[in-house]
Amino acid sequence: MMRLVAKSAASIAVLGLMAAPAMAQDAAPPVSPETQYIFNTLLFLIGGFLVMWMAAGFAMLEAGMVRSKNVSMQCLKNISLYSIAGLMFWITGYNLMYSGVDGGFIGSFGPYSFDPVGGDALDTGYSTASDWFFQMVFVATAASIVSGTVAERIKLWPFLIFTVVLTGFIYPIAGSWQWGGGWLSEMGFSDFAGSTLVHSVGGWAALAGALILGARKGKYGPDGQVTALPGSSMPLATLGTFILWLGWFGFNGASQLAMGTIGDVSDISRIFANTNLAAASGVVAAIILTQVLYKKVDVTIALNGALAGLVSITAEPLAPSVWQTVFIGAVGGAIVVFAVPLLDKLKIDDVVGAIPVHLVAGIWGTLIVPLSNGDASYGVQLTGIVAYGVFTLVVSGVVWFILKSSMGIRVSDEEEALGLDKVEVGVEAYPEFGAGSQRV
Amino acid sequence: MMRLVAKSAASIAVLGLMAAPAMAQDAAPPVSPETQYIFNTLLFLIGGFLVMWMAAGFAMLEAGMVRSKNVSMQCLKNISLYSIAGLMFWITGYNLMYSGVDGGFIGSFGPYSFDPVGGDALDTGYSTASDWFFQMVFVATAASIVSGTVAERIKLWPFLIFTVVLTGFIYPIAGSWQWGGGWLSEMGFSDFAGSTLVHSVGGWAALAGALILGARKGKYGPDGQVTALPGSSMPLATLGTFILWLGWFGFNGASQLAMGTIGDVSDISRIFANTNLAAASGVVAAIILTQVLYKKVDVTIALNGALAGLVSITAEPLAPSVWQTVFIGAVGGAIVVFAVPLLDKLKIDDVVGAIPVHLVAGIWGTLIVPLSNGDASYGVQLTGIVAYGVFTLVVSGVVWFILKSSMGIRVSDEEEALGLDKVEVGVEAYPEFGAGSQRV
Amino acid sequence: MMRLVAKSAASIAVLGLMAAPAMAQDAAPPVSPETQYIFNTLLFLIGGFLVMWMAAGFAMLEAGMVRSKNVSMQCLKNISLYSIAGLMFWITGYNLMYSGVDGGFIGSFGPYSFDPVGGDALDTGYSTASDWFFQMVFVATAASIVSGTVAERIKLWPFLIFTVVLTGFIYPIAGSWQWGGGWLSEMGFSDFAGSTLVHSVGGWAALAGALILGARKGKYGPDGQVTALPGSSMPLATLGTFILWLGWFGFNGASQLAMGTIGDVSDISRIFANTNLAAASGVVAAIILTQVLYKKVDVTIALNGALAGLVSITAEPLAPSVWQTVFIGAVGGAIVVFAVPLLDKLKIDDVVGAIPVHLVAGIWGTLIVPLSNGDASYGVQLTGIVAYGVFTLVVSGVVWFILKSSMGIRVSDEEEALGLDKVEVGVEAYPEFGAGSQRV
Repeated sequence: MMRLVAKSAASIAVLGLMAAPAMAQDAAPPVSPETQYIFNTLLFLIGGFLVMWMAAGFAMLEAGMVRSKNVSMQCLKNISLYSIAGLMFWITGYNLMYSGVDGGFIGSFGPYSFDPVGGDALDTGYSTASDWFFQMVFVATAASIVSGTVAERIKLWPFLIFTVVLTGFIYPIAGSWQWGGGWLSEMGFSDFAGSTLVHSVGGWAALAGALILGARKGKYGPDGQVTALPGSSMPLATLGTFILWLGWFGFNGASQLAMGTIGDVSDISRIFANTNLAAASGVVAAIILTQVLYKKVDVTIALNGALAGLVSITAEPLAPSVWQTVFIGAVGGAIVVFAVPLLDKLKIDDVVGAIPVHLVAGIWGTLIVPLSNGDASYGVQLTGIVAYGVFTLVVSGVVWFILKSSMGIRVSDEEEALGLDKVEVGVEAYPEFGAGSQRV
Repeated sequence: MMRLVAKSAASIAVLGLMAAPAMAQDAAPPVSPETQYIFNTLLFLIGGFLVMWMAAGFAMLEAGMVRSKNVSMQCLKNISLYSIAGLMFWITGYNLMYSGVDGGFIGSFGPYSFDPVGGDALDTGYSTASDWFFQMVFVATAASIVSGTVAERIKLWPFLIFTVVLTGFIYPIAGSWQWGGGWLSEMGFSDFAGSTLVHSVGGWAALAGALILGARKGKYGPDGQVTALPGSSMPLATLGTFILWLGWFGFNGASQLAMGTIGDVSDISRIFANTNLAAASGVVAAIILTQVLYKKVDVTIALNGALAGLVSITAEPLAPSVWQTVFIGAVGGAIVVFAVPLLDKLKIDDVVGAIPVHLVAGIWGTLIVPLSNGDASYGVQLTGIVAYGVFTLVVSGVVWFILKSSMGIRVSDEEEALGLDKVEVGVEAYPEFGAGSQRV
Repeated sequence: MMRLVAKSAASIAVLGLMAAPAMAQDAAPPVSPETQYIFNTLLFLIGGFLVMWMAAGFAMLEAGMVRSKNVSMQCLKNISLYSIAGLMFWITGYNLMYSGVDGGFIGSFGPYSFDPVGGDALDTGYSTASDWFFQMVFVATAASIVSGTVAERIKLWPFLIFTVVLTGFIYPIAGSWQWGGGWLSEMGFSDFAGSTLVHSVGGWAALAGALILGARKGKYGPDGQVTALPGSSMPLATLGTFILWLGWFGFNGASQLAMGTIGDVSDISRIFANTNLAAASGVVAAIILTQVLYKKVDVTIALNGALAGLVSITAEPLAPSVWQTVFIGAVGGAIVVFAVPLLDKLKIDDVVGAIPVHLVAGIWGTLIVPLSNGDASYGVQLTGIVAYGVFTLVVSGVVWFILKSSMGIRVSDEEEALGLDKVEVGVEAYPEFGAGSQRV
């Protein structure tokens, strides 16, 4: 629970929990410890259901960005990965991330236990089950990021096994270094809501997968041509982006981890406003740049501009002034415009653009924290970025490689041409139109 | 208001409302009665809007699971039934369910009146309008369940008239037996958030409709063949499922009915975690079983696995340990895998699988309550299940039969072939593709 | 901040903020000023994210109501306008609307500054950033209304420039007259949550655009024929409507602007119930009327009936009794049934029906306030309606005219036939079906 202690110690001291016993002798504290406990827990619950909703956002974004022959599979993967993440974060994840890290590299093994019916001891400051719920939806987010990159050619079960490892081991161990109170936290690394811990970790795991899996057939020609394989539904992709934007208020806002003082709730409000402004700046930067460069405004770039703005502000959504926020978000939007074609040059096939959005913008957001937060340093930020990159890329790569060598991770060329919906799901997404209507 | 009194008396006694006057003489109570009132009301409002959102979930799930020629109709039915439920629960429903039941079988007749502007008396512990709102969205859920089963062949107006009766009379009278403080409540029946009261009641009403309406043309052949009539959009079905999953946090969580003590808010947190874990277990059980049995993983089974896990945990989302929760949810998921083909053997045509999900898993969830809740007994649980089953099946059957005999409930074979969108709505769901593009 | 002061002075006086110092000497106030501050801020945050979500609702509603060749464009416009609204309400909007209006016609120029990290002074009663966030999502709503009316023929960039002017200047200046404490507020005009300030202002701006832009090719024949140009996806339109309905609980409920007393939270509950009942009545009135008049029930009329019911109750969602609410909402639903064909007779081409829903029902809702609210008068309500109508129509008309005369606002006939997605976006919404599959 290092994360809570570290982040809101200041505000708790001002009004509330720790000072409560002393104050009670003179007068009631302005907000009683019990009331603070309720507010803190409510924050985790509201934030938690908003981030849970992001699972639907990823599902819709990816369903809209793949071709119609692979849409059912993408839906299936997303509801399955969210389920697996929830189970694994109970079985091993939470304790690996938060129990007994003590400045080290890993927590303890074993399933998590909730406190009994009727509640927790008051001195935790919030319900432990609400904290578990809120942290659990974050690991699901990391897993969702991978799903979009490796779409349209990966087999179902190897993907789900990778999800087991990512959500039960890779993410929690990496997370323990910072939010669990491990070595990076002691070094002074700063990542408020997870530009690196969630988005870049997801992005590195996705990159490893894309490299080992290879590009979709027909995406890259022998002479460097890049063929667009357009997504099947722009409105679903748009819906997914709006869902993610909405969920991000919970992602960043509830990462304040406390709502029982006027200082904390005011900070949450600042985070809401900054989060929205960064996303808006990402969109505006992306549409202006694409208009200037290409004379058209690709809607997928606008959507990814919003997401990149959101990822960019996630490492530090509280401290930046509005001007700084707009700058951070706009650079995030610009990153999408330039990183998407760059990946294509490198022949890294990222179906939904998750690597530019979550990995590259995540690095940007983490690097720029010292601009607004005086407690952070560029050196330590870089150290953290590199540490997370090396660890996640190497371990994910090993896992992907083992899966490839054992059960295989990629469908055959014939199956890829037919589409995963016919081959592995047996249910077409749109049986009456699109790929579905050309029945074999 | 029996439901509130019964459920949270214990926690209110610990910290708060009832004890407040005595404590006020010595020191301020830890959470003042006014603050508790605000928290309790806020719980109803947040829970209420989450459950309201489930109406959209059912609409999307059903729109995705019917063929494109019937999608507009399914959308129209869902927004209409939600509207009718809201009006009927004001006109007759609330008072039939909650006023003066006193251990009996029915409440009183007459429209409900909200307290005046500026608020209610403090001693209710919450705003009566918030309570009405929260209970109202539950009746809408029951009506939504029916809509999916009888899709693709029922006429609009008989369906809406059935909805009037279900939401204004059948559901509230049945509900009065337990949540209104009626005879089953006095007997010790236990159904925390409505596995039986909402989901099975909806499921029984749907079953009665399916039996009297008959199967869709072409679904069952003369020699026992079952023809799949695949739904038009898997991403919409997936979206609907995610919406329902999100809404269920309100459904189960706010059924705690109080949030003004640390005990209550901690219990709500436990409920959130358990609700999510049961759904996740339902998905994982369903996908593993389908892989083993059929060598493919049908996405609709995964979706219904999530919903069955949710329904299963709804009768008792608080008491189970995580291990018990995972077991309860996984059995729910397995129920879907086995009950869907069973219904087809019985030639009961349930378009979206609502009967396995809401009725069968609802029975399972209600039966298994004594596993984790020592105050419940298997005998009483069975009594309640049978009572709700007989009452709802018989009364719904009579209403469906009267509608069939008078105005008719089923479109002609020709109209069914053309699709309800052309015949009754006059607006095709997808005029440019699918059924819409084959213009007559 | 006139809006807050004006609306909740009464309730603040009863329990709480203003009375706090005096009461503290005897006993703790029932809800401490700090706790009230947290509740008030939380109301803005929850209300804010619900109204933010309405941006997705408009996007889906409009994506479903345009033809498939223009869907990507509609998605792009909606995410862009929401982004622009957020930026403009920071750059000029908030201060023009709320700073130093003092009974006048306009506030002050200059970007808005949030309070520093760690919070605001207690005496504001809520976090200023939360207030900014909540007000910002309202201006985005007004801009979304315009987008639907002018769809399928307007160019991207002139539309976005109009959005800049609307959200940065027209809406805030108009808003200052009432919510900023300007001349209409002093006169006693009453518009609780914005039937006129948000919905009619958006509607007038849309009307000006429709008039200057002209109808889509093929919509109106030379001999008065009206050709239906059916929307591409009824489920997306339905989803959009449900999203808007959900968001409206934040729109109307959080417009109470305070949640720190039992009076305020009870009023919010009343508003939730009334908002839902008005929407439900709008649906039921619309479907009964269309059945009687046309022998079919057009799903788009049902959806717009819900929205018109919502707009109608927005000017006064608190005071009406349930009977009055049902009447107000039902008339709203009827307005849609009659105003949609009327607009067609006038050859005003409103693609999604935003003018009937937001402008006409907004006028109705504002006019009928004195029925339930004794402090309002029909004369003053009419004055406000006319003032907003003249100002918005004239200024919007001038802006549209300047845009038309300079850069042009309409695509060529050829481009309109091809569809905006091919011409301006370069990304088709459904590349594998519908318009997308007929590749040129």
